Amino acid sequence: MKFTEQLAAAWQKNNSLLCVGLDPDPAKFPAHIKNQPDAIFRFCSEIADATADLACAFKPQIAYFAARRAEDQLEALIAHIHDKHPGVPVILDAKRGDIGSTAEQYAIEAFERYQADAVTVNPYMGRDSIEPWLAYQDKGVILLCRTSNPGGSDLQFLKARVGAGDTAIFEHVARLVADEWNTSGQCALVVGATFPGEIARVREIVGEMPLLVPGIGAQGGDIEATVMAGKTAAGTGLMINSSRAILYAGKGEDYAAAARKVALETRDAVNRWR
Amino acid sequence: MKFTEQLAAAWQKNNSLLCVGLDPDPAKFPAHIKNQPDAIFRFCSEIADATADLACAFKPQIAYFAARRAEDQLEALIAHIHDKHPGVPVILDAKRGDIGSTAEQYAIEAFERYQADAVTVNPYMGRDSIEPWLAYQDKGVILLCRTSNPGGSDLQFLKARVGAGDTAIFEHVARLVADEWNTSGQCALVVGATFPGEIARVREIVGEMPLLVPGIGAQGGDIEATVMAGKTAAGTGLMINSSRAILYAGKGEDYAAAARKVALETRDAVNRWR
Repeated sequence: MKFTEQLAAAWQKNNSLLCVGLDPDPAKFPAHIKNQPDAIFRFCSEIADATADLACAFKPQIAYFAARRAEDQLEALIAHIHDKHPGVPVILDAKRGDIGSTAEQYAIEAFERYQADAVTVNPYMGRDSIEPWLAYQDKGVILLCRTSNPGGSDLQFLKARVGAGDTAIFEHVARLVADEWNTSGQCALVVGATFPGEIARVREIVGEMPLLVPGIGAQGGDIEATVMAGKTAAGTGLMINSSRAILYAGKGEDYAAAARKVALETRDAVNRWR
Repeated sequence: MKFTEQLAAAWQKNNSLLCVGLDPDPAKFPAHIKNQPDAIFRFCSEIADATADLACAFKPQIAYFAARRAEDQLEALIAHIHDKHPGVPVILDAKRGDIGSTAEQYAIEAFERYQADAVTVNPYMGRDSIEPWLAYQDKGVILLCRTSNPGGSDLQFLKARVGAGDTAIFEHVARLVADEWNTSGQCALVVGATFPGEIARVREIVGEMPLLVPGIGAQGGDIEATVMAGKTAAGTGLMINSSRAILYAGKGEDYAAAARKVALETRDAVNRWR
């Protein structure tokens, strides 16, 4: 099944726009797990099992695995999610970006080795650096557009001269993706929750295209603004990511239950504004 | 020793501005190596041994290893180069880019796990995505500026309004790095050889900062233009990368000797214009 169809089905079935980010930092794991040899797999898979009926996607961040030689645990985690929770797609958060021949290798890494359903990609190197990803037409290709970090403005918010008028770089990326790169309907964009006005601007440009929105916490100060700015007419179109607030909600043996509680609250806080 | 000092020493000792790119594709390996369990390590380390006295740096591309579950062979390769050829720094070509907490993990991957001397990084997410790399002050941080692929123009060549006038995005990146990010003198930039005029423009902006220049082949049609545009007053300042033309110069058991021959020709072709 195509990623976009999986995502749409998960939005409905789980009545959720919540993407659970899996950024495993062993220093923050509960004591009973911390020193086990497969601690990362165990922690993440228990979080996944506890939240799968509340999520529209899972998003493991590959750096947390690579920093600890835990690629095998990432493979096992994605296989576990596909096996136990087949309705919830897995986005590999890798933000790769390179020339075509190298991008082909990265696409093999993400889609063949890890069997991810979608991947995050950096657009700085342009069209031919994206094409090897697009060649996997069932997979989702989620391009960085407007990121949630302070430095996001350094380049993305510059005004560029395009055609007759001025347009911010992130808007230009949104337009390139919507008008030129998304030929198979498999693209999505990353737009940070810290900038609701810019989410609205991107939504205006890209129509129904899904947006992956990092930057909210369990407290959800800006959940209302994010959902109101980003939802489609159908009340979907968003993958609102929360990582640390869910993963580290509890510090003890009941951490998975604590994670579930925060995931449920976050999902419902989002749903209030759909 | 700092990366920039290692690089300067290698420029002198090997009388070379040549960076040997290690992009191992087993489909292109000689038949006697292709099916060995550690084929990637063996191929790359034999290339490194055959060219170490002709190179100012080695640049393994991580995607080629990750696509084949060969992270262990990448670790072994970098350790081999450090052990056998301590004068030649290793640049991990990874082009990572993410928010600060994730960039910290990527920096652990590159600098602690793989022990790379320098890494390539994508600037699209701005200052705070670069800082975790800069915290390793002895390491080189090589930022994408103007890439050699056709799609490089999609974003990098847009004219942005910065201050009073218009400036191309890649020039703005060069200025940000030179004026603001390079506080410890550890930064370098990627500027493709396909655009000599733009190499000259970047050189003008960044002073003596090293430039990593991909995009030339053994034929070297534009070696003259690249060196003339990019060299510093001292006749250095460049890491001119060649990967496939060297790696796959020979198809038989003598592939390492064939690689050495092309590396020597390329080094000398570069030196003619220093």
